[in-house]
Amino acid sequence: MTAAPARSVHRGRPASPGLARGPVVALAERTATARALGTPAEERGRLADAVAAAGAEIAGLSAAQDDPEAAAILEFQAALAADDALVEGAFAAIEGGASAEEAWGDAMADMAGDYRGADDEYFRARAADVEDLAARVADRLAGRDTGPVALPPGGILVARDLTPSLFLASDWSAGRAVALTEGSPTAHVAILARARGVPMAVGFGAVDATGHGEAILDAHTGRLVLSPDADDLSRFAFAAEADAAERAVEAELAGRPAATADGVAVKVMVNAGDPAELDAVDPAACDGIGLVRSEFLFHGRRGLPGEDEQFAAYRRLLAWAAGRPVVVRTLDAGGDKPVEGLTRDEANPFLGLRGVRLSLARPEVFRVQVRALLRAAVHGDLLVMAPMVALPAEMAAVRRIFDEEAAALAAAGTAHRTPPLGMMVEVPAAALTLDLFEVDFVSIGSNDLVQYVMAAARDASGLDGLDDAGAPAVQRLIRTVVETAAARGVPVSLCGDAGADAAVLPKLVAAGLRSVSVAPAALGRVKRTLARTRSDGVPAS
Amino acid sequence: MTAAPARSVHRGRPASPGLARGPVVALAERTATARALGTPAEERGRLADAVAAAGAEIAGLSAAQDDPEAAAILEFQAALAADDALVEGAFAAIEGGASAEEAWGDAMADMAGDYRGADDEYFRARAADVEDLAARVADRLAGRDTGPVALPPGGILVARDLTPSLFLASDWSAGRAVALTEGSPTAHVAILARARGVPMAVGFGAVDATGHGEAILDAHTGRLVLSPDADDLSRFAFAAEADAAERAVEAELAGRPAATADGVAVKVMVNAGDPAELDAVDPAACDGIGLVRSEFLFHGRRGLPGEDEQFAAYRRLLAWAAGRPVVVRTLDAGGDKPVEGLTRDEANPFLGLRGVRLSLARPEVFRVQVRALLRAAVHGDLLVMAPMVALPAEMAAVRRIFDEEAAALAAAGTAHRTPPLGMMVEVPAAALTLDLFEVDFVSIGSNDLVQYVMAAARDASGLDGLDDAGAPAVQRLIRTVVETAAARGVPVSLCGDAGADAAVLPKLVAAGLRSVSVAPAALGRVKRTLARTRSDGVPAS
Repeated sequence: MTAAPARSVHRGRPASPGLARGPVVALAERTATARALGTPAEERGRLADAVAAAGAEIAGLSAAQDDPEAAAILEFQAALAADDALVEGAFAAIEGGASAEEAWGDAMADMAGDYRGADDEYFRARAADVEDLAARVADRLAGRDTGPVALPPGGILVARDLTPSLFLASDWSAGRAVALTEGSPTAHVAILARARGVPMAVGFGAVDATGHGEAILDAHTGRLVLSPDADDLSRFAFAAEADAAERAVEAELAGRPAATADGVAVKVMVNAGDPAELDAVDPAACDGIGLVRSEFLFHGRRGLPGEDEQFAAYRRLLAWAAGRPVVVRTLDAGGDKPVEGLTRDEANPFLGLRGVRLSLARPEVFRVQVRALLRAAVHGDLLVMAPMVALPAEMAAVRRIFDEEAAALAAAGTAHRTPPLGMMVEVPAAALTLDLFEVDFVSIGSNDLVQYVMAAARDASGLDGLDDAGAPAVQRLIRTVVETAAARGVPVSLCGDAGADAAVLPKLVAAGLRSVSVAPAALGRVKRTLARTRSDGVPAS
Repeated sequence: MTAAPARSVHRGRPASPGLARGPVVALAERTATARALGTPAEERGRLADAVAAAGAEIAGLSAAQDDPEAAAILEFQAALAADDALVEGAFAAIEGGASAEEAWGDAMADMAGDYRGADDEYFRARAADVEDLAARVADRLAGRDTGPVALPPGGILVARDLTPSLFLASDWSAGRAVALTEGSPTAHVAILARARGVPMAVGFGAVDATGHGEAILDAHTGRLVLSPDADDLSRFAFAAEADAAERAVEAELAGRPAATADGVAVKVMVNAGDPAELDAVDPAACDGIGLVRSEFLFHGRRGLPGEDEQFAAYRRLLAWAAGRPVVVRTLDAGGDKPVEGLTRDEANPFLGLRGVRLSLARPEVFRVQVRALLRAAVHGDLLVMAPMVALPAEMAAVRRIFDEEAAALAAAGTAHRTPPLGMMVEVPAAALTLDLFEVDFVSIGSNDLVQYVMAAARDASGLDGLDDAGAPAVQRLIRTVVETAAARGVPVSLCGDAGADAAVLPKLVAAGLRSVSVAPAALGRVKRTLARTRSDGVPAS
């Protein structure tokens, strides 16, 4: 019997926060298996079978997803597997004498390279999905298991990398966690892990977990300890207790109105990208929906949604909110949110025909949404805001269209109500001249505001330090907006990642902001940060 | 003998301002000429001859250009004509039975379509160049004249459209002008016409100039009168006189220091994208060079320019300025200015790794420029500024690199001087927090500042009203910059189109700005606008 390997400590990067302790399992690396080359017809048959089987696996997995992001990843792979053109290139190589494995590997490497070299961010991100399918088919060809990872409860998986489809197929409940020797915090699988609360750290470099019985993973800091000693374990227990206590505080605060340490009330609403995100949220735990991204109605479909379909969706959101305010943002297509048949290719889509600009350029599409909103407003506390407004004239044009459609509904005897009309403050021009706008309320869109104030796209790499909502330039502008709004009696909120950022939220409160809208998963955390911050932004001691 | 056609008036769009009156000449439309189809070998030979002849024409034309923009357009076409791969597709179609004309036309239409559909603005703009070459070869095949347009002095050409190469090959001196029934103010040929001061208006729709003896073209407003009557002619004489008087005022003012109507001095410097642009400028007519776009050293070449080459170029600019200040902007690659081997493809290049960000990410490239600038600073009043600065830390990093390279030059005993180090204020963050920066001077980059404040790319279509440096949001920010700079004793200027815009310049003066840097061609016009504006921005009556 070999002796258990000695304790070792490894440094990686956090990808999804959390703590884990449990049995460590190393995911075996794929190894090439030699076999005799068949005839071209045999090789083609093997490849066709493997692609079909992998496609069926993916399709089954896709049908089981609730999360639209996960479903989108899998649907793309399923469509890829079902595309005959995909295997044609590989078949040609097989006719030329290649094995199924070689032919498939080369064809998919080419395709992944094409995606990776694409100008469009969306297509670049798809390269990982191509490789995901490529690996699954390669496993099938080699007769390797393509089923889920078998990890005991509380177990920590150590692997080189993990494909999104394998992650989605596996069970991560009961404190299971992931340490990747390669990987990236921005990879699809890291995004999925964060959405599901699975602790994950990446970039550990060479780690051999074989033979180690147990491990500790601190995915807050990116630290992995294999075969921890008594000292490690007692420190872990302490940290886990503190972590659990924080979670308990959050769970307790989640159900109560938010307030600062010195008792100043702050409204905390939720952002909803898709109504399904609200399923796990108790409406009583928030002050309403501060941002409905109405793009959800336009995605993953052919054609644009009709008036009745939109009306029904808005009405469902109002019913969920049960009398609380629901702020619907009119279609914010363009930028990084293309909509087929509506948006166009642009050299700089973030600085292009997007948001309200596109709605005013395509009024026939916008008016459908306006009518649905006017009709839905009868059924709850609906508010409507326009995205990407830069000039007072744009807001005036929006108001005119609401007035015209309201008059048309009135003439037809259809029940409707004109909701308060507000705007996102995310273009610097709007922040600099808020006093010139006719609006009923505003919501600061901190994500876009930061990228325009800094002239740095938030999805660009190599721009460290520029994506910072806490930077003086952004904070000065936000303070101007809050003060101008207060002076004019215009309610102001903020929807964007800054509201849920513990380093920025105190600054926002100090600037006078008394309302934020955050991701549902951040509700408890935001209330906890507020409870520990005085209204002047200073931490409560 | 047919009677001369009656007077007719046509409305188009201004493309290059100016007035013209003279004999009207209609450019004959190309007509297809039927001929017997040769053998494939004959057709191939005809096509190869036509391409070679067209390529030689273009190469000759290219060699005769001073203007780098014109040379770039022609060099691209010459390279295209010299590319064997270009005709291979056409040869294949000829083998399949096509005529040289058909094969060539189809191949070039395909290629132009590919360029037009490209994501990259640069490649989209090249589609017009592909069509330019295509037309020249087609003319050769048909035995049509491909020589310059023969227009009498003062003549007005009426044509459907005009290729850049035909424009560049023709003589436009002596008041000649162009009216296009199609065309666009943003087409290459319009840009070339503006650069040369050739009056041009476009988009007249169907105009038949045949038989008309004379015409009047007002390219300020886009109005064409064929066979003008006595009334037209007297009005034209009056307008031409006023226009000439304005030009005379400009010419007179050009040699004098600029001042407002109430005698407040305003510095007017020139922008130089290429030292060749300065050939026609009298250094005494300006207060120095307010912006040297050092990208000119990096364009149209293989590899990056070395230290000595840069040193020599900066020294030539200092010699031209003869003691006046010369403000060199460090490399502003990225955005809409790709540099091979340095910049990268990005989803939103205007919000990407560009300007000082790229210089700090690639210090080995930046340090070469820094050394060349330190050495050149000994030879005149050199100032250096960094583009796209958003954070004080970036400016500090630039200063550190200058200090390190200065120390290295000192250690090597090389003559050098550390120039005043400033920055462009074009990122809103820099404008909002100018008080936090350590800088010796600043220059407002109004073009980029406007596009970030408005979140609207200046080259995007459909964003009317957003590209406005006179908008309140932009003006408020500029006033903040001018006031903050004044309070700190930091000299402030502005380089960008706003400085030469007669609608915006008075606002800048009213905001307290006392220095602008403009295109050499705008010098007289800017001085004229200033002379008619009081220092509070109100027109002098």
